[in-house]
Order: sequence, then structure tokens, then C-alpha cells
Amino acid sequence: MTSFPDWIAVDWGTSHVRVWLMTRDGQVLDRRDSDKGMGKLTRDQFAPTLAELLSDVPDASSCPVIICGMAGAQQGWVEAPYVATPCAPPGAEIATRVPETDWDVRILPGVKQMHPADVMRGEETQIAGLLLEDQNFEGTLCLPGTHNKWVRIKAGQVTEFRTFMTGEIFALISTQSVLRHSVNTTDHDQKAFEAALESAMADPSSIAANLFSLRAEGLLHGLPTDTARARLSALLIGAELAATRPFWQAEEVLILGEGDVARAYEAALAKAGGTARCVDAETLTLAGLKSAYAKLGKAAS
Amino acid sequence: MTSFPDWIAVDWGTSHVRVWLMTRDGQVLDRRDSDKGMGKLTRDQFAPTLAELLSDVPDASSCPVIICGMAGAQQGWVEAPYVATPCAPPGAEIATRVPETDWDVRILPGVKQMHPADVMRGEETQIAGLLLEDQNFEGTLCLPGTHNKWVRIKAGQVTEFRTFMTGEIFALISTQSVLRHSVNTTDHDQKAFEAALESAMADPSSIAANLFSLRAEGLLHGLPTDTARARLSALLIGAELAATRPFWQAEEVLILGEGDVARAYEAALAKAGGTARCVDAETLTLAGLKSAYAKLGKAAS
Repeated sequence: MTSFPDWIAVDWGTSHVRVWLMTRDGQVLDRRDSDKGMGKLTRDQFAPTLAELLSDVPDASSCPVIICGMAGAQQGWVEAPYVATPCAPPGAEIATRVPETDWDVRILPGVKQMHPADVMRGEETQIAGLLLEDQNFEGTLCLPGTHNKWVRIKAGQVTEFRTFMTGEIFALISTQSVLRHSVNTTDHDQKAFEAALESAMADPSSIAANLFSLRAEGLLHGLPTDTARARLSALLIGAELAATRPFWQAEEVLILGEGDVARAYEAALAKAGGTARCVDAETLTLAGLKSAYAKLGKAAS
Repeated sequence: MTSFPDWIAVDWGTSHVRVWLMTRDGQVLDRRDSDKGMGKLTRDQFAPTLAELLSDVPDASSCPVIICGMAGAQQGWVEAPYVATPCAPPGAEIATRVPETDWDVRILPGVKQMHPADVMRGEETQIAGLLLEDQNFEGTLCLPGTHNKWVRIKAGQVTEFRTFMTGEIFALISTQSVLRHSVNTTDHDQKAFEAALESAMADPSSIAANLFSLRAEGLLHGLPTDTARARLSALLIGAELAATRPFWQAEEVLILGEGDVARAYEAALAKAGGTARCVDAETLTLAGLKSAYAKLGKAAS
């Protein structure tokens, strides 16, 4: 490193943690990540994990640290209570200070919706980043991940959202179920994906039968693994698109995501008759953390 | 044991194996089971496993052994090729003889359906048992299990069937997903089951969101685990009932099953406006194996 960071930005999710060493004016000096996500840590392992990730940074403990994500969950480091919709993405001014450390560590709150009951932690910071870059944004967001979120933004506020367990169900079925051998490939059959999407949207109740068909077609008709994997994905995403039609049928969807899963939602929405474009989620998370840091500076001054 | 068996009946499933010591005239002398299902065995472990289960039976190797279930799968002991629908439940006359043993071991075939692709192994023997007891039975069967089957029987034949992965998806979600703590109970909230069933049937596409709601309602509203577990079950069974309406809406369903899962399908069908009654599956499996043995005797004589 050529210079010392002024503050530390952290995205602490269930399975991973990402750390950025930042300057006061928003430059990234360095980036680290680790698989020591919240799901693998007990309460007293967060502080040592952070110290380890910053062990080569002189005077790291004098830098403010701003964290978003699952570190603020009940089972995380310190609970950062949810803010209820409708609300602007909550910032550092209502972050929870971690008490049992000399460091200045603050965890950003998540957002809750009382009816239908729903929660997010981490996504609100991506949304904060988006609204920093485009203050007048209004419309629908799709945030693919283990727990995919569909979010409506109006007048700078999260007005409504809905979480789908689609990503987690895909992971369980593709690695743990009778289908794990049938879909064991990283190749992708886009034509099969699009064909299956249509029938999944038309008949979502048959999903558990259409899934077993992937196994049976493998046995009886030699269905290739890339076709089976694409159809598994389409069956799950198709049901989700059928349920979220009110979110996407009348307006462009902004997909806040990365990699294959973001592209799959983009292709699915296009095939279903919607429109979508992708924005890189990591960039937005960091922008949201920067925005929280800026507010922290103002609040302190 | 007071007398020697004349033959051995075996139901060799994916996770369990059940063995009955039988007399020529169909009396059960003894019953054993073990968790050495097909899923845990390599090809060369089937013979020693069977020998171990029968180690106290004098002259066991001179008894004919008739096996139904997954022991006849590609990954089983010896593949017993499927018979295609429409067909009567296949009997011992087309069973596959296990070659690499001195014993007289025969494995019954499964049944396949080419379009939509589907397969069964073991259920066809339950159906044979049913048709032995009620030769004129026509109508719809529901066979709950890891892979639930809906089967249409006409003129003594399996004319059509459809398999739902509902049971396996329930097991994965309740033990491996983010919901595992939310549904961690053996208690059952029947009222919650019935209420959730209705909304699941009306809106099956929202299943992945309604599942996540169980977690969020736990966090925000203290949803009890028995209510969450009942709703998880209702969401999955509700989608299946919406898809299988043509099977059950115009006629009584015979549920071939055991325990909680059979009762859950019976209650769900009643709530959905269908009618159903349960028949014990193990009794039928054994009846089917007896019927195969009877045919074997005739074929040999």
C-alpha cells in the first residue's frame, strides 16, 4: 500500500465478507475478501476476523468501519434493528455502534416490511448507492441472489418489496437432490432455457412434476445435462416471473446483480415480454457505503 | 422361528430395505428391516447385505427371493428394465434374474411412461397388490413419498402417471435451507395448514416468496414453528393439488401411504373439495410381492 486508509467499507454477507480500504474522498486503496461470512461465525469471531483481514494496515483500529449486510442480523455481530417501509435506505446516522471493541465500527440497519412480512439486509445499501448516482430514479429493481428481491422505489423511498427463495432452492436442488447428477455441468443451453420459461410461467403449479421429468428424461431419452440445468433454472425463474408480473410488466426493470444469475434474469425478462438492464451490484454496494460515510462525516461535524 | 420360510419377499428402496420371511401360502413368519437402502450400497454390496439380513435362516439360499424397488435401478444391484405404459403392473414372469449368485433372486421391473417422461420403481408392486385385492378397481391413486406419484388405473392397467418431487423438496427446505430453524418442530397446526393450502392452490407461482415469508414472519411477528411447518407443507402440497386437479376433482382418490404424510394428503384433498381414503402401503407391497410369487410358481409348474 502506498497510503493509509481513512476509513474501511465492509459488506458482510451470509457466506462472504468483502472489505475495501478507502480514502476520505472515495478512492479504493485495496480490496480483500474472505469466505468468513456471518453464517460461519459466532458473535465473538467477528472482531478477530475483521482484525485479521486488516492485519497489515497500520493504525487500522483508528479508522471508522462501516458495515452493511448480515453482520447486523440477530445471529450476527450486533443486531442493527430494521427500519420499516416506506423508508429511504437507512444511512450511517442510524447505524448501530458495536460496543465491545476499541474500534469505531458501525453496522447499517436492514429494512423490514410488516405486511406481507419481509426483510432485507445489504440490499438497502445497494439501493442507497443507486439513489446516490441517480437521485430521481423511480421504478422496479430486481436484486438476484440466494434470496432474490423485487423492490419498488418511489420518491427516494423503498415503498414495497418481495423476497423469493429461488436462488437457494436452485442451489439445494442442483447439489443435494435426485437431480444433482442430471444437472451436473457448467454449460448452459439458452434455447432450452427460453422454451422451458414459457411453460413454467403458464403452469407454475406443476413445477415439482416438471423437475422430476428432468430425471426421467435423462433416464428414458438421454436428456443432456446442460439442457436439464437450463430447464431447472427456467422452471424456478419462470414461476417467479409469473408471480412478479405486477412489478415488471409495465416498466423497465433495473437488475442489480452480477454474473450468470443477473444475465439469466435479464434474458428471462426479455423472453417474457419485459425489458431489463443490468447494473453492477458491487459498485452500488460500495457507493452506498460511501454515501453512509459521507453522512457520518456530516453528522460528526 | 418355528418353521422355515418357503420364499423371501423384499422391498429394496433408496433409503431402506424391508425383508419378509414367507410361507408358500402367504403367511409372514418374520419381518426385518435395515437402513441399507440402494442409495448407500455399491453393486457388490447387495448380496452380502441380503445374506446378513438372513444369516439366522437355515438354508436361506435355497429359497426364491423376490425383490421390488430401487435394487432394480441402473445404479442398483442388477438393472431390471422398465415396462412401458399402458401396462398391468409387471410380475415375476418378466423379473430379472440376478446372475452372480447361487441364490434364486429375481428383481421386478419398474414402469416407465415415455411422454411426459416418468418412471416408478416399487410403486407398481403396491398397485399389483391393490389389484389383487380389488381386481375391478378403476380410478386415481396417490402414492405419497419422497417422490409422490399420481396414477390412473383402467382395466387393470397403469394408463398414466405423474411424479412430483414434493416430498424431497419438503425435506431439503425443512432441514437445509434458511427455514430450517423456523420449522424445527414435530408439532402440527392443522388450522394453519388448511388456511395456507387454499392460498397456495390459488397462487402457486408465489411459492418461493411465500416460503421466505415464513422466515420473515418469524423475525417480525414471532410466527410459531408449528404454524410455519404446517404452512411449508401446505404451500408444497397446495401447488401439487392445483396441478393434479384432473386426477382428483371428479373421483375419489385412493391414497396408498403411511403415517403423517398420507394423512396430510387426505386432509388436503378434503379441504380442496376432493374425497380420499387411505390404504396401508406396506400391506399392499407385500400383497404385490405375494402375487409375483404366485405367478412365479405357475410359470415354473
